Amino acid sequence: MKRIGKQTLEFDNAPGITGHGAVAGRKEAAGPLGSDFDQTFDDTTLSTKSWEKAEAQLQKEAVSAALRSAGCKPQDIDMIFAGDLLNQCISSTFGLLPYQIPLLGQYGACSTMAQTLLMASIMVDCGAARLAAAVTSSHFCSAERQFRTPLEYGAQRTPTAQWTATASGCAIVGRQGKVRVMHGLAGKAMDLGVKDPANMGAAMAPAAADSIYQYLQDTGTRPTDYDGIFTGDLGSVGSKLLLDTLLDNGVNLAPVHNDCGLMLFDQESQDVHAGGSGCGCSASVLCGHLLRKMEKGELNNILFCATGALMSTTSQQQGQAIPGICHIVHLKSTL
Amino acid sequence: MKRIGKQTLEFDNAPGITGHGAVAGRKEAAGPLGSDFDQTFDDTTLSTKSWEKAEAQLQKEAVSAALRSAGCKPQDIDMIFAGDLLNQCISSTFGLLPYQIPLLGQYGACSTMAQTLLMASIMVDCGAARLAAAVTSSHFCSAERQFRTPLEYGAQRTPTAQWTATASGCAIVGRQGKVRVMHGLAGKAMDLGVKDPANMGAAMAPAAADSIYQYLQDTGTRPTDYDGIFTGDLGSVGSKLLLDTLLDNGVNLAPVHNDCGLMLFDQESQDVHAGGSGCGCSASVLCGHLLRKMEKGELNNILFCATGALMSTTSQQQGQAIPGICHIVHLKSTL
Repeated sequence: MKRIGKQTLEFDNAPGITGHGAVAGRKEAAGPLGSDFDQTFDDTTLSTKSWEKAEAQLQKEAVSAALRSAGCKPQDIDMIFAGDLLNQCISSTFGLLPYQIPLLGQYGACSTMAQTLLMASIMVDCGAARLAAAVTSSHFCSAERQFRTPLEYGAQRTPTAQWTATASGCAIVGRQGKVRVMHGLAGKAMDLGVKDPANMGAAMAPAAADSIYQYLQDTGTRPTDYDGIFTGDLGSVGSKLLLDTLLDNGVNLAPVHNDCGLMLFDQESQDVHAGGSGCGCSASVLCGHLLRKMEKGELNNILFCATGALMSTTSQQQGQAIPGICHIVHLKSTL
Repeated sequence: MKRIGKQTLEFDNAPGITGHGAVAGRKEAAGPLGSDFDQTFDDTTLSTKSWEKAEAQLQKEAVSAALRSAGCKPQDIDMIFAGDLLNQCISSTFGLLPYQIPLLGQYGACSTMAQTLLMASIMVDCGAARLAAAVTSSHFCSAERQFRTPLEYGAQRTPTAQWTATASGCAIVGRQGKVRVMHGLAGKAMDLGVKDPANMGAAMAPAAADSIYQYLQDTGTRPTDYDGIFTGDLGSVGSKLLLDTLLDNGVNLAPVHNDCGLMLFDQESQDVHAGGSGCGCSASVLCGHLLRKMEKGELNNILFCATGALMSTTSQQQGQAIPGICHIVHLKSTL
């Protein structure tokens, strides 16, 4: 592994995406990417007795789909990097328990897919793992009741609010795969004082701007060197802030930028306000949609820049602002 | 990096503990290891307005002590691996925010010190970081009100209950240091059906037994090849279960075993029931006490086996058992 510039890692052996899987709920299935998921669930309880158990089940199913796609068994995976939004990451613990794979729990809020994929890629590149998995999930109903209000209240949502995706994505990193991991960047937590938990996009945009700017500096590349730079999940409010901030710093991201939160749902018809969010949003967009497009040659060279809001209901109630974070993974197709 | 046996990693470049710091509260200062901490706080609010902010401050102070000990600045650290017990790991987020070091949030419950140290060591060994930090914390008062009952209730504690340490420990891994990281093992989550949240030791013992047994198998070593095998935090109940389980499998750990939860407090006089616990317990015992003893040549070859209970109040209320996990780091003195 080589460090280039201030924060970027360059992989020596270009680990490959050996397999991937994405599963989602009913609303996501009805969205523009519905046909890209390995499995969708009309009943979003997944026949379990609680939303939290349903979310754990989503992770289990995403890993199962990824294992099938990689053509391997749980015991072939040397390490699994997993995390989620629920207190103490219980979706990961209980969803992955049956697989008995050495588990390294990660917490990066909605940036978890980029963080876990970065960790898994480092492990494979340096030989710490032959195959390593990266997985995360979110569930609209478990997130609402933990972070906001019980669904039964029918609370109104503000225009800047985002809709937590009911979804999970898993990628298995190894020596094989049409898509290669070329570079990665671990981001810093950035706090610009945004305190509105119904405007996570604004809270996360500064971190996305910081990480993307640094990555471009470190690698000496320009946005148009990539087919696409995908953030997640800034939604419409955060995306605009990101583009404006980077433009103020001489970087025009607009020609190649899209946001996983804007891709997962139809903004016109699906009433998700500022867009999708949750760890499962960028995870399912990457592992369902983007990797598929790369394997077909429709995308060749992308940056996946998942963003997270590092807060809890307690930090919020105690008047703290909402720091954001953004980790980056550079993926390239070998086609 | 080399994989040996089923689960163990052998480091090629034996990363060193370049610096370390440990801070603790009043009760810990009064315990047998009180003089080993870099700083202790008589006022366990650390002059903040909440227990959660106090815990964040503990992490900040532990990192500060470790930076002083390593003789370096925050900007010299390429990555920091951090996590804690609070929902969404807010002690780490807010405690580390001022340092602006690329942050990779970890969740391993009370196994976090071993997990973060393992991650930091891998990064340095493979060149992903020149210096990487590992830190975690816990606070009795923030843990009690989040996981159990508000302190003001004065709830009675069972004999098997453990006392969450008010403490934090940080290790900085680099190319220098009298103590070297030789091997590491990432553990599996193990669930043997223990459901009593006032008996975490019993919930974590099977994971400790599994990881230690596997480590000894992988490396072809025996317990007496080490000066000490330190678990954390099984307490008295979990320690007995661990020793019994391993003995049933032909491994006698008793001559070299000690538990961080039994070392931090005086069992006779400090009324902690089954012992200490919390991420900060094994972190402060390692970064305050054990590393100091190794640097003085009083300990030369140890296994640090931190254990965690992967549960939340929600998983508990929904009738789930408490899976345990144990990660291992093998440390050797170069004296």
